[in-house]
Amino acid sequence: MQYFTDTGKSIDLKEVNRAIESAFTDHGRGLVQMPPKIYITLPEGDFRTMPAYLPSLSLAGVKVVNVHPGNPARGLPTVMALTIILDIATGTPVAILNATKLTDMRTGAAGAVAAKYLSSKKEVVLGLIGTGRQAEAQYQAISQELDICEIKCWSRNSLHAEKFAQAITDKDARSVPVEKACDCDILVTTTPSRAPVVMSGWVQEGTHINAIGADAAGKQELDPLLLKRGTVFVDDLSQAIHSGEINVPISCGIFTPEEIAGTLGEVVIGMKKRESQDQITIFDSTGLAIQDLAIAAIAMRNGRAIDLPFP
Amino acid sequence: MQYFTDTGKSIDLKEVNRAIESAFTDHGRGLVQMPPKIYITLPEGDFRTMPAYLPSLSLAGVKVVNVHPGNPARGLPTVMALTIILDIATGTPVAILNATKLTDMRTGAAGAVAAKYLSSKKEVVLGLIGTGRQAEAQYQAISQELDICEIKCWSRNSLHAEKFAQAITDKDARSVPVEKACDCDILVTTTPSRAPVVMSGWVQEGTHINAIGADAAGKQELDPLLLKRGTVFVDDLSQAIHSGEINVPISCGIFTPEEIAGTLGEVVIGMKKRESQDQITIFDSTGLAIQDLAIAAIAMRNGRAIDLPFP
Repeated sequence: MQYFTDTGKSIDLKEVNRAIESAFTDHGRGLVQMPPKIYITLPEGDFRTMPAYLPSLSLAGVKVVNVHPGNPARGLPTVMALTIILDIATGTPVAILNATKLTDMRTGAAGAVAAKYLSSKKEVVLGLIGTGRQAEAQYQAISQELDICEIKCWSRNSLHAEKFAQAITDKDARSVPVEKACDCDILVTTTPSRAPVVMSGWVQEGTHINAIGADAAGKQELDPLLLKRGTVFVDDLSQAIHSGEINVPISCGIFTPEEIAGTLGEVVIGMKKRESQDQITIFDSTGLAIQDLAIAAIAMRNGRAIDLPFP
Repeated sequence: MQYFTDTGKSIDLKEVNRAIESAFTDHGRGLVQMPPKIYITLPEGDFRTMPAYLPSLSLAGVKVVNVHPGNPARGLPTVMALTIILDIATGTPVAILNATKLTDMRTGAAGAVAAKYLSSKKEVVLGLIGTGRQAEAQYQAISQELDICEIKCWSRNSLHAEKFAQAITDKDARSVPVEKACDCDILVTTTPSRAPVVMSGWVQEGTHINAIGADAAGKQELDPLLLKRGTVFVDDLSQAIHSGEINVPISCGIFTPEEIAGTLGEVVIGMKKRESQDQITIFDSTGLAIQDLAIAAIAMRNGRAIDLPFP
């Protein structure tokens, strides 16, 4: 059994995007086993258990990932993760991966795949609501698929947004008021908000939105009017209904599961698509266990491993 | 983060029984978080993911365990397991345990707790149907709670049963025909059978049965008439209905969930009990994630650990 400790280093982002795209292809074709992730509530956060089997990669395993919003104050990341990989022939645990960075990257890659297929343009203005680690991951991954000509970012903490913009030296990147950030081609929301941050009136026709932040019951970032106005694709139906951007509007009866246009997998295999230049498309991402397996395969080829005795 | 490799060594069986008893106490009182285990089917077996949070021990984590019946032919155990333990305050993974032996032990301990509370006698004849690793674990654990005066064992492979009996030198232990093994006080079934092995007519009044082998949909070891004749306690309602001894009779409509007398947790806290000397009691064990947490706590105090970098 091997423990991969420095995962996420020297991984090619384009390769990650293609691996995640391929996982969504399998998902769209119904070729994966992936029950909805399971939540356990802890006193100051939660953890999620995500088992899956991806036959096309002969890969099976489980990611265990926590979300503890108070962690940064203790000098720890909010989100930390381990992935266990099993040999599919014998069930033997063959690898354990530090999957903290991989979790950022595979989520970014899902956003990039959604943007690749659903953006109305190839050259885009990117709007970022939230400027933490996931905003960075989305920006990096989307850069591999589209030409980003301008970045407008906003954070509740404006110093944080300033710092984020300043760190991008090769592009026109600015910290702007929230409604200005929403005036873009690709809008990415990555906040832990429990109330709408993006109002419908701020979003122009033709925008594609990656709604990333809502990943647990009770979380939401978008004005429900945007969901009604736009066309909503999800990564996985049951997970999105339970814990994605649509979970609160569904609970309130404002939005219904029948209004979901399809899954990203269905988009990738060509069953579903953006129907017009003016359409607002929304990708509701909750994060899939098959994304974790797909990126684990890359990390195991690239990472440094410590041999551990097992059994 | 620490990796505990040689778990299961130098662990006191009485201590394990008490820890498992305490976990069932918490379960009976509704003080645990434990969604039903999740099954993923692999080409030649399956794996199960078992997350839980046991507040009384301040312990949260996930066990990942496979079942691959063809493994012994490859020189590997049928069942192998890893447990990940998270810090409940921050969600940080703090330990990974080789949980293969611990899985045997915690299952044996559940059988011992059931026998302690449900046996009609203190001095017993033990009947074993199946003579593999779990039969050994049940025998060892039950020995801590009851005086075993005689052991009668049976296996489909009679050489295996002979060998099992011969290895027990301090007690009257014999390999016998299956119906003779069923004529006992505590009957323990640990086979991977998918059809009844124990017929109702072979079991005398007052017997307590630990039905251990059936732990997945489609598995069963007991004549359904025994379930109708006896009083059935389960470790966990949803798990037992899905994958315990009662799962096949329930699917066939022979047995109904309403006929379940209660859980072992309810027995341990005194809510439910054996009602008479003549009653046949049956403990339907599927294996609980809280048992894995409870024994992990002991293993982490006793085992040797390798330090691993994380994050």
